[in-house]
Amino acid sequence: MKIIVIGATGTIGSNIVRKLEEQHEVIRVGSKSGDYQLDLTSPEEIEKMYKSIDNIDAVVSATGSASFKKLEEMTPELNTVAVQSKLLGQINLVLIGQHYLNANGSFTLTTGVMMDDPIVHGSSAAMANAGVASFVKSAAIELKNGIRINSVSPTIVEESLSKYGAFFDGFNPVPVDRVSNAYIKSIAGAQTGQNYTVY
Amino acid sequence: MKIIVIGATGTIGSNIVRKLEEQHEVIRVGSKSGDYQLDLTSPEEIEKMYKSIDNIDAVVSATGSASFKKLEEMTPELNTVAVQSKLLGQINLVLIGQHYLNANGSFTLTTGVMMDDPIVHGSSAAMANAGVASFVKSAAIELKNGIRINSVSPTIVEESLSKYGAFFDGFNPVPVDRVSNAYIKSIAGAQTGQNYTVY
Repeated sequence: MKIIVIGATGTIGSNIVRKLEEQHEVIRVGSKSGDYQLDLTSPEEIEKMYKSIDNIDAVVSATGSASFKKLEEMTPELNTVAVQSKLLGQINLVLIGQHYLNANGSFTLTTGVMMDDPIVHGSSAAMANAGVASFVKSAAIELKNGIRINSVSPTIVEESLSKYGAFFDGFNPVPVDRVSNAYIKSIAGAQTGQNYTVY
Repeated sequence: MKIIVIGATGTIGSNIVRKLEEQHEVIRVGSKSGDYQLDLTSPEEIEKMYKSIDNIDAVVSATGSASFKKLEEMTPELNTVAVQSKLLGQINLVLIGQHYLNANGSFTLTTGVMMDDPIVHGSSAAMANAGVASFVKSAAIELKNGIRINSVSPTIVEESLSKYGAFFDGFNPVPVDRVSNAYIKSIAGAQTGQNYTVY
């Protein structure tokens, strides 16, 4: 399969790439590095990417930004970071990509544990994550040509503890390899409309 | 209590107003009618409303637009209707309103059944509804001064069957009065972080 991985340099993305490369052709997409550069917040850039890379079987998004702020400091403006990136960036990959993907292809997007198990500073990310998860569930019943869609909801991964661990005291970290397996299951399997929680 | 109801002329909003008026002072807010006019998509207008109406104990939002379109016809642009109105309009009522509401006040927002039980044409609304529900769950753990927050997720109401029934074949419609009770429970009760499903 020919698979696009967006967010290919991240902790999760780079692990997914490593596993997929054993069997598939992987196009690594990053905001500033990789085989192709993409500004996920721009629908025009997303359209351009799909026009530039042909014959795509699967799209994996392991990216998406959000502002982490106390609720009392969260403003409509700060909240738009998650809206434009984690929420709409990922959804636009599907709205636009549905017209380009090969038949029987798949989309796999990324949500996150805080939508189910809220953390302080996490309200904006929770909003974006849940919006993506329900969009996935709904889009799955309408996608044509056998195209499937799932999302993966990781908890904090062991490899990110030094960076983000303070937000997740008391959460049970998981090895990034377990998270990557959920993406592989989405791509290689036959399920659609699922949100795979890796908690 | 002094209670703002946004979307006061809608099928659900007008029923909530009728029930609340028996015991409370209600400020009816609409886009074009009511005691106060508000463009929910404008954070500046929301801030102006909170500056204009003092001593608020509860905010009820029974409003929010979304584009209903087949997924293959849904575009990033059409999707922004739900983002700006149902999702961010409602969330901005909280982000801004948290600094104005009376102590021990409450916010009650509106989600909807299609986030749990998807319908054709409903992917954009599903996204917005779930984003609101998870924001509510997360915001609840951070709101100060005893301020609470819940959402209500109605299914199709009997009173709207002639208008929207075709989208909801096979769903069990509920009387609008049952939906209104969920808002009353949110305002009068002590729970927070809940999404009351009325299915």
